[in-house]
Amino acid sequence: MHKHLSSIDSPLALHGMTNAQLVELAAEIREVLCNLVCERSAHFASNLGVVELCLALHSVFDFGKDRLIWDTGHQVYPHKLVTGRYHEFPTIRTRGGLMGYPNPAESPYDLFMTGHAGCSVSTALGLKSGDDLSGHTDRRSVAVIGDGAFVSGIVFEAMNHAGGMDKDLLVVLNDNKMSICPRVGGLASYLDRLRTTPFYSGLKNEVTRILNKVPLLGDPTERFLAQLKEGIKAGLHGGMLFEELGFRYLGPVDGHDIAVLRKYLKMVRELRGPILLHVVSEKGHGYEPAAEDPVYFHTPPALNGKSSSAHAGKALGAYTEVARDAIRQQMQRDPRVTVMTAAMCQGNKLEPVRDEFPDRFFDTGISESHTVAFAAGQAKAGLRPIVDIYSTFLQRSFDQLFQEVALQNLPVAFMLDRGGLTGPDGPTHHGAFDVGYMRLFPNMTVMAPGDAFDLQAMVEFSTTHDGPCSLRYPKAQAETVEGPRQPVQLGLAEVLRWGADGAILCFGTLLNDCVRAAEMLRQDGLDVSVVNARFVKPLDRVVIQRVLSECPFVVTVEEAALAGGFGSAVLELAADLGLNASLVRRLGLPDRFVEHGERHELLADLGLNDAGIASTCRELAAARQQLPRSIGDQKITA
Amino acid sequence: MHKHLSSIDSPLALHGMTNAQLVELAAEIREVLCNLVCERSAHFASNLGVVELCLALHSVFDFGKDRLIWDTGHQVYPHKLVTGRYHEFPTIRTRGGLMGYPNPAESPYDLFMTGHAGCSVSTALGLKSGDDLSGHTDRRSVAVIGDGAFVSGIVFEAMNHAGGMDKDLLVVLNDNKMSICPRVGGLASYLDRLRTTPFYSGLKNEVTRILNKVPLLGDPTERFLAQLKEGIKAGLHGGMLFEELGFRYLGPVDGHDIAVLRKYLKMVRELRGPILLHVVSEKGHGYEPAAEDPVYFHTPPALNGKSSSAHAGKALGAYTEVARDAIRQQMQRDPRVTVMTAAMCQGNKLEPVRDEFPDRFFDTGISESHTVAFAAGQAKAGLRPIVDIYSTFLQRSFDQLFQEVALQNLPVAFMLDRGGLTGPDGPTHHGAFDVGYMRLFPNMTVMAPGDAFDLQAMVEFSTTHDGPCSLRYPKAQAETVEGPRQPVQLGLAEVLRWGADGAILCFGTLLNDCVRAAEMLRQDGLDVSVVNARFVKPLDRVVIQRVLSECPFVVTVEEAALAGGFGSAVLELAADLGLNASLVRRLGLPDRFVEHGERHELLADLGLNDAGIASTCRELAAARQQLPRSIGDQKITA
Repeated sequence: MHKHLSSIDSPLALHGMTNAQLVELAAEIREVLCNLVCERSAHFASNLGVVELCLALHSVFDFGKDRLIWDTGHQVYPHKLVTGRYHEFPTIRTRGGLMGYPNPAESPYDLFMTGHAGCSVSTALGLKSGDDLSGHTDRRSVAVIGDGAFVSGIVFEAMNHAGGMDKDLLVVLNDNKMSICPRVGGLASYLDRLRTTPFYSGLKNEVTRILNKVPLLGDPTERFLAQLKEGIKAGLHGGMLFEELGFRYLGPVDGHDIAVLRKYLKMVRELRGPILLHVVSEKGHGYEPAAEDPVYFHTPPALNGKSSSAHAGKALGAYTEVARDAIRQQMQRDPRVTVMTAAMCQGNKLEPVRDEFPDRFFDTGISESHTVAFAAGQAKAGLRPIVDIYSTFLQRSFDQLFQEVALQNLPVAFMLDRGGLTGPDGPTHHGAFDVGYMRLFPNMTVMAPGDAFDLQAMVEFSTTHDGPCSLRYPKAQAETVEGPRQPVQLGLAEVLRWGADGAILCFGTLLNDCVRAAEMLRQDGLDVSVVNARFVKPLDRVVIQRVLSECPFVVTVEEAALAGGFGSAVLELAADLGLNASLVRRLGLPDRFVEHGERHELLADLGLNDAGIASTCRELAAARQQLPRSIGDQKITA
Repeated sequence: MHKHLSSIDSPLALHGMTNAQLVELAAEIREVLCNLVCERSAHFASNLGVVELCLALHSVFDFGKDRLIWDTGHQVYPHKLVTGRYHEFPTIRTRGGLMGYPNPAESPYDLFMTGHAGCSVSTALGLKSGDDLSGHTDRRSVAVIGDGAFVSGIVFEAMNHAGGMDKDLLVVLNDNKMSICPRVGGLASYLDRLRTTPFYSGLKNEVTRILNKVPLLGDPTERFLAQLKEGIKAGLHGGMLFEELGFRYLGPVDGHDIAVLRKYLKMVRELRGPILLHVVSEKGHGYEPAAEDPVYFHTPPALNGKSSSAHAGKALGAYTEVARDAIRQQMQRDPRVTVMTAAMCQGNKLEPVRDEFPDRFFDTGISESHTVAFAAGQAKAGLRPIVDIYSTFLQRSFDQLFQEVALQNLPVAFMLDRGGLTGPDGPTHHGAFDVGYMRLFPNMTVMAPGDAFDLQAMVEFSTTHDGPCSLRYPKAQAETVEGPRQPVQLGLAEVLRWGADGAILCFGTLLNDCVRAAEMLRQDGLDVSVVNARFVKPLDRVVIQRVLSECPFVVTVEEAALAGGFGSAVLELAADLGLNASLVRRLGLPDRFVEHGERHELLADLGLNDAGIASTCRELAAARQQLPRSIGDQKITA
């Protein structure tokens, strides 16, 4: 069906293709992308925007030996299609299928699994440095990075280092004026100014005419580039920001003109030293609705409506929406409450908050370290900032959580979305570690709501508590646990049911699975307690001591890494109290990176659903029956 | 004795002082600083360099309402001397005395406890944002940051955000050409070029003459500044890098000329929008040996030779030196081994390695996030990079440890210096959390040497093991444990002695204290085992299972946070094996920020020395005797 795509086994095939053929190939790729997003939710607009750039890169370089890093790798679909994965492409983002990010296990053309933004310049520089030291000085190294990711501090660190090292490194700045939402900050304005320089406006006429006359190898190119550079500098100040750091700046060039892109790439391939090539593209290019609304079309739901998560109930919306509404309510109640996002306004569904409270909504761009320190400054000035952020992205702020927030004991509220398995995005986005690392910080109160009721209450708690707080919730449809509920109070767990045969201690939104597991067990004649822990720090010593003392077995449940997580906190308390915890079993995320797939599939695999929890309880009950209580210190074979 | 200092109760007193009086005050401050470093090790050269800047700031602003953040707060001594702490000053960096960093508990003039570099622009912007929202729009916000810290990515993130927000914010870039060692990278070259502009060269003549004629308030200043800016831009490109981000650039100005500094600060105080004032100073200014060798005089040992840690043996040197020698040996053996430091060449004593292997030594500047991603790139290219770094500074790289290293399973070796209590630097520098967070990452091997023998072996192990490794050691004199030793092998603990009455499991260099504790206990008739755990991940299941099964009590010992640390890993294993761990006690760092003081003082306070460990063992042995083994699941009152 796709004439070119179906016959491309290796990207080397692109070297021999004409510009016209590459244009045809680009059209085929766009058709594949459109077909995909009809079927399922996937990253779309960003991939449409890099089709020509991807083809130009592969047609000029040989990434079998040269090095290519796609920053924020959800823009890697065209790359996958031309590096031998066309036939598997329909499996992308499904369990067992291709990953929606670069994956070294799939292809030698994928060097790093990149889901988080901004590290491409660093790794590309490291690759170049390593290749040079290994004697492979002919290998070129290329980082492709969007302007959204470009404001991330690590990019500046890498540019500064590269400028000082003077290594041969090509950074392609793919400027589409967007993060997921429109980008913000001083650099954004700067890039806007660069776009309007005569150089870009006249590109298709005069400059390409000049380029046509210039030989593309050796010294004459050098001289031309030097002149070009001086011309830009003197007349337009174009790219001075990058030049000052030690980079040669070239551009801006049209990111959808394959002929021009090839020409430029051939030229810079032969140049020495660090180079920044400024490419201007359009997110969603080639599919009009996506180009017109690239925010919606960043990761649209399946366009034909058969979303794979359509089976979930919609009554409450997602936890993200419950959280958003609770934030909004707190902002209505208390003028000191502010909210900040690091370029994830859309992912966190904060648009209504942004529109209602433009003065108290802060989009800091992809700069999580700054975001947290900035929030600490606001808190010190008497405000009650909320940092609304994905669990894994907050990892960028570990040191600011430590120094600027916990050490100063400032009342910043951290709302960690995507705490747990995110599903099709896979291991770069699964929020596995936050419970373990948040628990480390003195002064930090660490929570997880059991359901939507708790989430709402915890947002209120965290904006009124006198110290830093964090709470986490998954990317999932919100649920509520039935029955009468206790208010959320510092360090208190909620006993949902009491049963003498065992206990399930749950930290987080798997609570309903625990309740259902208890119901299943009742049908087996086992009456188990279900506790909604709510706080891992401080832990409810009274309730947990009672459970450990009175229940023959205890299962802890969390959607987080087992190492140092909630279950470990329970074991620590048991040891501190001198209690036997030999019949405590911890369910949670294992010590490996969990693959991509639908969240409910992955949870089931890990025994983290009602059936799995019930099964663990049955095993423990059986083991317990084989043992007199008094020899609980021997090994259980369960 | 100090005419001015002894009478300054509040920095407001500086407002009424003449320039000549401030010069006298500066001399008094330098005398105090020199007297201090005769007595004890303290930050010196950086403080000598900011005396005039500090006085000028306090004489122009009122930081009772205005906001002042000292980035990397070891340069805060002059500030402490003029904000009511002159009389307590001799206690600085001693237990119970003043802290060597800003400390909000000491003074309302200290807003943030800042030991790590680069967050000042973020927190100052947050303060300004918070003050404006709270109606205190008259409060000015000032961040003072050195050029060493300025390359840290978070500074760029904050500058980008500030440029976009257009808030009134003054960033004083104190350019002394240094981190602790000479700074590196493209920005360093850029600042060097700025220094040589005619503007600076002619500063003392023409420009000050112009400034003298210009009224310092209101619109004329605005106009003058606008002209100045255009002049710089057109003729010199001065500060374009900052201008492009949305800042007004002013400078460079002489950081040791109080009159000029005051004049500029009065001017910028009245300006709107984000401003960068480029101040050029000399690290060590006013004390010739320090100005000539600011690296040595960054934190020199007590100049009169009575170092407070002189009681420690010197045979092996410090663990830092043992580590350095082991790195050097591996680099001699294997040409693929490289080493990188984030501006801590001096702190990690790597100068000989830098001089012997200039091509395989990388100082990336204060940019830890980049450093780790850069190392990952090198590893992907086939090298065996070592990241030699302080425990707390690696916190800046949590996300790169996750994505670029652990997720890709790349063989990068992390050598964490200052793992444990660092002593007089206090809570910003105590390495408490690395065991807890390193243990979270799948694929990561996590070690701590028991002594110098282990450290050397683990460096070799970590550069030959096929995956990422980390090892940690404290800022302390190296020791060796006596007797025959086992080689370091993946996941194997070393049983130093076997005793049936109890066991001490040690992770790290408190091992000799454990051995001594066991000797003390033998005199009490208790024969306890001592195990050198070496690995917390993977844990030695066989040895620990044996200890848990056969020894009546177990004490775990680590110089790290108890939450999720080594002791917790032991408890997790016990629960996984179904073993009773009710007589396991965990010794380590508590859930609070530990103050500053000498390391041995702090360890003793926490029960983390031979006597404390022995005492815990005695309590457990006594509790054990009161209990039949079979009811170990009841609460121990020990």
